Amino acid sequence: MIKIAPSILSADFARLGEEIASIPSADYLHFDVMDGVFVPNISIGIPVLASVRKITDMTLDVHLMITEPRRYVKDFIDAGADIVVIHAEADTPEHTMEALREIRALGKRAGLCIKPKTPAEAALPYLNMLSLILVMTVEPGFGGQKFMPDMLPKVEFLRRAIDSGGHKVELEVDGGINPETAKLCVAAGADVLVAGSAVFGAQDRAAMIRRLRGA
Amino acid sequence: MIKIAPSILSADFARLGEEIASIPSADYLHFDVMDGVFVPNISIGIPVLASVRKITDMTLDVHLMITEPRRYVKDFIDAGADIVVIHAEADTPEHTMEALREIRALGKRAGLCIKPKTPAEAALPYLNMLSLILVMTVEPGFGGQKFMPDMLPKVEFLRRAIDSGGHKVELEVDGGINPETAKLCVAAGADVLVAGSAVFGAQDRAAMIRRLRGA
Repeated sequence: MIKIAPSILSADFARLGEEIASIPSADYLHFDVMDGVFVPNISIGIPVLASVRKITDMTLDVHLMITEPRRYVKDFIDAGADIVVIHAEADTPEHTMEALREIRALGKRAGLCIKPKTPAEAALPYLNMLSLILVMTVEPGFGGQKFMPDMLPKVEFLRRAIDSGGHKVELEVDGGINPETAKLCVAAGADVLVAGSAVFGAQDRAAMIRRLRGA
Repeated sequence: MIKIAPSILSADFARLGEEIASIPSADYLHFDVMDGVFVPNISIGIPVLASVRKITDMTLDVHLMITEPRRYVKDFIDAGADIVVIHAEADTPEHTMEALREIRALGKRAGLCIKPKTPAEAALPYLNMLSLILVMTVEPGFGGQKFMPDMLPKVEFLRRAIDSGGHKVELEVDGGINPETAKLCVAAGADVLVAGSAVFGAQDRAAMIRRLRGA
């Protein structure tokens, strides 16, 4: 069963409560944190997550596009994150491992994200620690970008690595996902699809979530 | 006439539109941007400002607690900032001057903020460029902190510098402002008061704005 994680980066931030209430069939709510240092945009952070946590029981899938994420893992968990996804490129391997360990020690699901220029192999050393791997299918920083089909071999590679190792790790993709690119991602082995503009820009959001899930 | 600038850091981010609609008598809406690098918190940024701009004509007073703010001045102006306040401590003096020049060149009001440990004199070289000086009366990073009365001599010093030079610069204070500390700040020469918890935590927000303004 494919899971759908609408990204609130494409929502109307003046009425987040209503936006979130409009997607009850979503599996995860994807929460894009950008610090203006690791990526060229500054989006939303801890107090916004705390406000969102108060109004929904949905699984909050928090994607930290920030430098040295280890510094903020606990703050985001305290604010309500269920899954904390950090970037393989955001700190040293030692600190990345420490951050993943801390997420798990705090009882939450640990995720690792790789940018388009990072090879899939970069995720392998962490596989035992992970509940989720996120493959970026656009350069992180903005919503509404075009899907990069040359990321599909990375999804296939990671699907094989996860299955052959018997790991219980979800494989998520993020960037330019619509009903057409969703098909490609699912065929390559993705089981969680992040979609921002596709869902929040749809006339019928529930129908769009069904279409993506059926990809 | 004292101006009141409620800080949306203390608002409910799940219903920002309603929160903003609840303070029609405010003069400015204070918008606290934190990047997790310049200050130890990550708050709100460009897409949130763009959503807020669409629903209000209120003057948006955007306080950039971010490192090297020059990088993002244009993005925040494009997203709807009316006043862009950068920190004296966030970059070199040359880059700070460049950023202030860019804000003015883009037709917006330029502001400079100083942290509690920064002497008031740090603002003097920029006085000709500024529409606003913001004196932090707590360490920036979080709402709900206690007012630091030892910041009042800085407010008095800057009031004299502004008046004796014949500058048209507003003098704003931010941190721990309530009806009692507001009096102290106004007596010291402040003419814009940022208030987060005091306003958004009040039973009657309009009454609280009147009380602060009457300080």
